[in-house]
Amino acid sequence: MNPGMVARVIGNLLLLEAAILAIPLGISVYYQEKDAVMGFLLAMGVMGLLGLFLSNVKKESSRLRVREAVLIVTLGWTLTSFFAALPFVLSGSIPNIVDAFFEAVSGLTTTGSTILGEIESLPRGIVFWRSFLHWLGGMGILVMTLAILPTLGTGGQQIFKVESPGPSPDKFTPRVVATTKILYTIYLLFTAIQIALLRLAGLSFYESLVWAFGTVSTGGLSIYSDSMVRFSPNTFLILVTAVGMILSGINFSLYYDLGKRRFKQVARNSELRLYLVILLISVLLISLNLYGRVYEGLGETVKQALFQVSSIMTTTGYATADFDQWPSFSRGVLFLLMFVGGSAGSTSGGVKVIRFVVAGKFIKREFARTLHPQAATPITINGKVTSPDVVQGVLSFYLLYLAVFVFGTLLISLEGLDLFSAMSAVAATLGNIGPGFGAVGPMQTYASFSPFSKVLLSFLMLMGRLELFTLLLLFTPGFWRE
Amino acid sequence: MNPGMVARVIGNLLLLEAAILAIPLGISVYYQEKDAVMGFLLAMGVMGLLGLFLSNVKKESSRLRVREAVLIVTLGWTLTSFFAALPFVLSGSIPNIVDAFFEAVSGLTTTGSTILGEIESLPRGIVFWRSFLHWLGGMGILVMTLAILPTLGTGGQQIFKVESPGPSPDKFTPRVVATTKILYTIYLLFTAIQIALLRLAGLSFYESLVWAFGTVSTGGLSIYSDSMVRFSPNTFLILVTAVGMILSGINFSLYYDLGKRRFKQVARNSELRLYLVILLISVLLISLNLYGRVYEGLGETVKQALFQVSSIMTTTGYATADFDQWPSFSRGVLFLLMFVGGSAGSTSGGVKVIRFVVAGKFIKREFARTLHPQAATPITINGKVTSPDVVQGVLSFYLLYLAVFVFGTLLISLEGLDLFSAMSAVAATLGNIGPGFGAVGPMQTYASFSPFSKVLLSFLMLMGRLELFTLLLLFTPGFWRE
Repeated sequence: MNPGMVARVIGNLLLLEAAILAIPLGISVYYQEKDAVMGFLLAMGVMGLLGLFLSNVKKESSRLRVREAVLIVTLGWTLTSFFAALPFVLSGSIPNIVDAFFEAVSGLTTTGSTILGEIESLPRGIVFWRSFLHWLGGMGILVMTLAILPTLGTGGQQIFKVESPGPSPDKFTPRVVATTKILYTIYLLFTAIQIALLRLAGLSFYESLVWAFGTVSTGGLSIYSDSMVRFSPNTFLILVTAVGMILSGINFSLYYDLGKRRFKQVARNSELRLYLVILLISVLLISLNLYGRVYEGLGETVKQALFQVSSIMTTTGYATADFDQWPSFSRGVLFLLMFVGGSAGSTSGGVKVIRFVVAGKFIKREFARTLHPQAATPITINGKVTSPDVVQGVLSFYLLYLAVFVFGTLLISLEGLDLFSAMSAVAATLGNIGPGFGAVGPMQTYASFSPFSKVLLSFLMLMGRLELFTLLLLFTPGFWRE
Repeated sequence: MNPGMVARVIGNLLLLEAAILAIPLGISVYYQEKDAVMGFLLAMGVMGLLGLFLSNVKKESSRLRVREAVLIVTLGWTLTSFFAALPFVLSGSIPNIVDAFFEAVSGLTTTGSTILGEIESLPRGIVFWRSFLHWLGGMGILVMTLAILPTLGTGGQQIFKVESPGPSPDKFTPRVVATTKILYTIYLLFTAIQIALLRLAGLSFYESLVWAFGTVSTGGLSIYSDSMVRFSPNTFLILVTAVGMILSGINFSLYYDLGKRRFKQVARNSELRLYLVILLISVLLISLNLYGRVYEGLGETVKQALFQVSSIMTTTGYATADFDQWPSFSRGVLFLLMFVGGSAGSTSGGVKVIRFVVAGKFIKREFARTLHPQAATPITINGKVTSPDVVQGVLSFYLLYLAVFVFGTLLISLEGLDLFSAMSAVAATLGNIGPGFGAVGPMQTYASFSPFSKVLLSFLMLMGRLELFTLLLLFTPGFWRE
């Protein structure tokens, strides 16, 4: 272990976060929000001092191995979330530290669960910071999943980089830097286009910013307590957001391929195909279930189905309707989509479509093996043979996801709420979606949970975001043995 | 394919079933139940004729390969269930053929779900036949899982035979015969002991038979519409049944080992250990949750918790209390146990504990691999290396079980009942448990489902009983290609 190196990286992260706080601070200064200004300044001070201290810790070497990388990623997300919560507490907007931590984690992990019932009365700078965390988190996810996690190689995370953009030099760092630049260019471009379209749809500049952040990061925090229900009649806005979520749920390296004019390669990508097929079938099934029962017009039915399917499958979590009031079948499809999630290498959460591609081929091979025990065919994805290590990693991920879901649900059920609400609270946080069903439906909040459950749900968000293995590895005895 | 051979085996099965019908017929004759006598005689006639015809179909050879074995097992269970339903229909006891099929499948697969709200008014011969199906099904399961399925080798079913009793000759048939004899001796002995103990507990001879059948087969059909609630105050009876269920949920080949005085081998068996640990922890957790909240006395609390945990985990399904009224946490633990199930090579259903042993070791290895990528250790169970084929089979089984559970739930949710009820109906039938929660709680029946759902749930029972792959293999195009 190289603790000095870990401390320095974390220190630099905190300094960066303190610097970024200047943006919401500026907004609060502009709107003369005294409490918020104080909160931001105090938080910047604390983070700056701690960051300076940590970034000057003596390191033994610049060596970064698996242990250090795991520790940096896990501590990085946890600590930046913790400090991101400081302005909420210090400004008095969310005085309870557990609530503030929940809200900050929900932001940075692009989950979108909230404990705030009444958002409209909070200072603009604070609300902006909450949404801006989504956008920052989205940036963090892209680099982590496409550049850092694949090198750790647990849980089959290598599949994220199958088509990773950028050059392939031997050295780790130059590759990460190059990949990061490409990803951020795409991400910024998407955000800019989204803001422009939202302005066209009639939103104010401030609203456009907030919704663009929530969309491209597949986060889903709203600045209104009815999520997006009030915008439901604005069909153009709904479609822009739906398409924005769908595009943000696709592996970002495919956009790099598009830019390089590798059209065939993109069109043949198995994950992209399955992602679109699942989206389409879900929209179709839910439309059939809702038509004439919940909505009268066919257009309105498809619009609502398309929006909600896109929102849940990409793990964004916006709602243009209280989908918890929909018939059981539609709710069942949405609940299922919570586990599917978007594509690997996107900002979305959940299990991710690529793992379903692998699982499908794995089961198919198992059937074939009964009839032809000798023919042991390797599993290929996009024409390339997938290593058995990756396949085993993917399968472990399923089992672990299920185990965390099950034990999380049992712990949450101690709150005394009904089991389906408990299940959906865990599915919605672990999958980084946001709202669920029942007690955590789209028109409800997470405010009524006990502090224990709020901390647990916060860690489920982090666990889901860190693809389970990365965080859970810290709890294995082997990790701390040298 | 060798259709002649398949037809002959099925024909012989039907002849055997027709002969067995003489037992409930005798009971109905004794009690002078005219309609039931007619029903049994007619059913015996139909089954006898069809059986005679099929068993004389010309066969090309005596060759039995994987395809033939799969077809015999699947058709065998489906057709014997279908014909077992005939007496219900022909006697007028369950006039609807879909309901009768559901009840017969539920019996033979040792599930224990029922569509009968009022059982007390039915002829004794018919009620006996319904319970006797459990006992016959239990016999079928033991031979199938310990002697036939392992030779097919899909879904890691080889693990069932790891410790399979009997000699290991080269030929298939002598081994099956020897194994069958040993298993049936144990099964008969268990039944006899259970009947004697139930008599001691104060049940009538008839009641003792019915409850012994339901216990050793881990079936759970009751002859009273309140399951076993009326017997709840009879602590001796409750304990005898609980211990009976627990013993029936253990791999029967371990009893053979016990008989051979291989005590150390039994004590060290990983599946047995995990089975008992899960049982104990579940009883403890539920007791803590119920104590002082649902039951006042500690003894009563532990008794109810022990009985319900044993009943659900062994997939029997008896209820001494309406556990659907218990707090969320206890219900959550029971719901989870529905998926765990008992041991491989027992009469219980569900995923089975051995697969959790494999999954646990698999995840542990995945964590180790991140830190030590070079050290690829094989997975060992009971000191023996498990082949990668078996491990992959086990993992496919999990994925397939999950997929069937999810799609089954979506189809059932079309009934319009709440999602948790839909989930538990599917979990309870696929896992061969019987009752679930909500609309299919222990004090409810499956009567109100549509015919489509009843047929679907019947096939889920068969699918679970046939360890998924065996039945689903028939639906793959490769199966029918020569």
